[in-house]
Amino acid sequence: MGLRFRPVDTSFYDLFTRAAQHLVTGAALLAEMLSETADHEDVARRMREAEHSADETTHELIRKVNSTFVTPFDREDIYALGSGLDDVMDMMDEVVDLILLYEVKELPAELSTQVEVLQRCAELTAAAMPNLQSMQSLEEYWIEVNRLENAGDKNHRRTLAKLFSGEYKTIEVLKLKDIVESLEEAIDAFEKVANIVEQIAVKES
Amino acid sequence: MGLRFRPVDTSFYDLFTRAAQHLVTGAALLAEMLSETADHEDVARRMREAEHSADETTHELIRKVNSTFVTPFDREDIYALGSGLDDVMDMMDEVVDLILLYEVKELPAELSTQVEVLQRCAELTAAAMPNLQSMQSLEEYWIEVNRLENAGDKNHRRTLAKLFSGEYKTIEVLKLKDIVESLEEAIDAFEKVANIVEQIAVKES
Amino acid sequence: MGLRFRPVDTSFYDLFTRAAQHLVTGAALLAEMLSETADHEDVARRMREAEHSADETTHELIRKVNSTFVTPFDREDIYALGSGLDDVMDMMDEVVDLILLYEVKELPAELSTQVEVLQRCAELTAAAMPNLQSMQSLEEYWIEVNRLENAGDKNHRRTLAKLFSGEYKTIEVLKLKDIVESLEEAIDAFEKVANIVEQIAVKES
Repeated sequence: MGLRFRPVDTSFYDLFTRAAQHLVTGAALLAEMLSETADHEDVARRMREAEHSADETTHELIRKVNSTFVTPFDREDIYALGSGLDDVMDMMDEVVDLILLYEVKELPAELSTQVEVLQRCAELTAAAMPNLQSMQSLEEYWIEVNRLENAGDKNHRRTLAKLFSGEYKTIEVLKLKDIVESLEEAIDAFEKVANIVEQIAVKES
Repeated sequence: MGLRFRPVDTSFYDLFTRAAQHLVTGAALLAEMLSETADHEDVARRMREAEHSADETTHELIRKVNSTFVTPFDREDIYALGSGLDDVMDMMDEVVDLILLYEVKELPAELSTQVEVLQRCAELTAAAMPNLQSMQSLEEYWIEVNRLENAGDKNHRRTLAKLFSGEYKTIEVLKLKDIVESLEEAIDAFEKVANIVEQIAVKES
Repeated sequence: MGLRFRPVDTSFYDLFTRAAQHLVTGAALLAEMLSETADHEDVARRMREAEHSADETTHELIRKVNSTFVTPFDREDIYALGSGLDDVMDMMDEVVDLILLYEVKELPAELSTQVEVLQRCAELTAAAMPNLQSMQSLEEYWIEVNRLENAGDKNHRRTLAKLFSGEYKTIEVLKLKDIVESLEEAIDAFEKVANIVEQIAVKES
């Protein structure tokens, strides 16, 4: 935080953008966690920090809604979008946490594909947030996130089928299933954010 | 879609009835999936189609709420009932999907009892929807669905106890537990619909 | 029920206090369930009774909100607090139920720590409810419940790590994981109640 001569009024659009940028960070940490040489303890620690920063942005957003008389769109939509972005972070944090907690050493290669989907969703979301101001180019964003979620779902089902193929010990299946399902929920959470943006755009148009 | 000479105004009651009829179809497909000779791929494909049709009815309902000035009861209750009916379909679709995905060949006989409960709930719900207009005979419907849910819950617990009785391999328990729990959630989703109808009836009376 | 000469108007504060006292009873039954000499059937039967009484208090609360013109705080906050307290009871009931259903004989010692957290949360909640009238001393309550939830979360993670340490057979892990996760959800449900109280206090201050 640098010295400031006068208070800067961070707009709602800036806060949404910042919230989505935390998700780009989170998705990158998740990708790091999957690499063979990752120091799980260290990545998990940085993920907790990222999750904490995201929480602060969410709180700042809520304080701003509560103290602002005229909001750019319905208060309840601002809450919904803020908590939707926050939910994505929580799910990504849970994935990293489970990998650390269960001490899983080898993860199925399919997980990398899911994390790539998450990274792409995070980038698209971060790029779309500033467009809430002009309400331009939002449709491409939500269509693409829905397409990614469909691809993620197909990959999720392939991963589950592999887990139950007999290749893994049952205790490993139990651990990996938790991780795989959390990843799927993180992707679903991105889709939910895209749906909220779509609803806002439809209302405002 | 046939040729139409003038627009037909499908009422809210018609749309709720249609949504519930999709659930009758879904429950029948679920029963078919459990039969020993079922072609899992084919039943799952038809279930996806039924789920898709149900989605379309839900969207039609939402469009109608948004474009109608005077609704027969509170907008939020219409949304709640519409999404409640949609949730049942999603849960039944998930059961069929898990049976296909996990390639489960033999299902415990207790599952048939649960699917019979689901079929009965679906029929009762489809029969109750047109009564929303007159608000008559709804009480018998929600009492009976609650009774069925209780019976389903007892059967669910017996099924879980059987899964853990030592009769099944652990990896099979892991698969069957998911399927059994999704079935239970589908029955719960019917009870939730009945509760929403009860609330609407209490408000309007 | 004794004979009454005139109707007694039980206040909202009394009803919230009574609801929270059911949770003290529930947490004590949960502790009893964990003791080595517990008669599981008998404790589970008394838990069902306690859960039933809690349900009645919730219904009384809802009837009172619906029939009262001026409520001490927003109707939706009364609903949220009432159903938040009810959710805790449901989760504690589920833990007792799973222990009975899965016929688990030996429970990891870590579970006792979680039940102690639950008992402490229940006592704090029951002590805080009457303070809703004066809005005094509530901050200490919600801070302490949040602290307890953090401690519970750390213990929860230790318990999960133990379950997967190789000490337990996989089928036991599958059972215990369900029980351990329900315990964690019961603690989370207490935190949610504390958050609702915090929101009410902030609004009213």
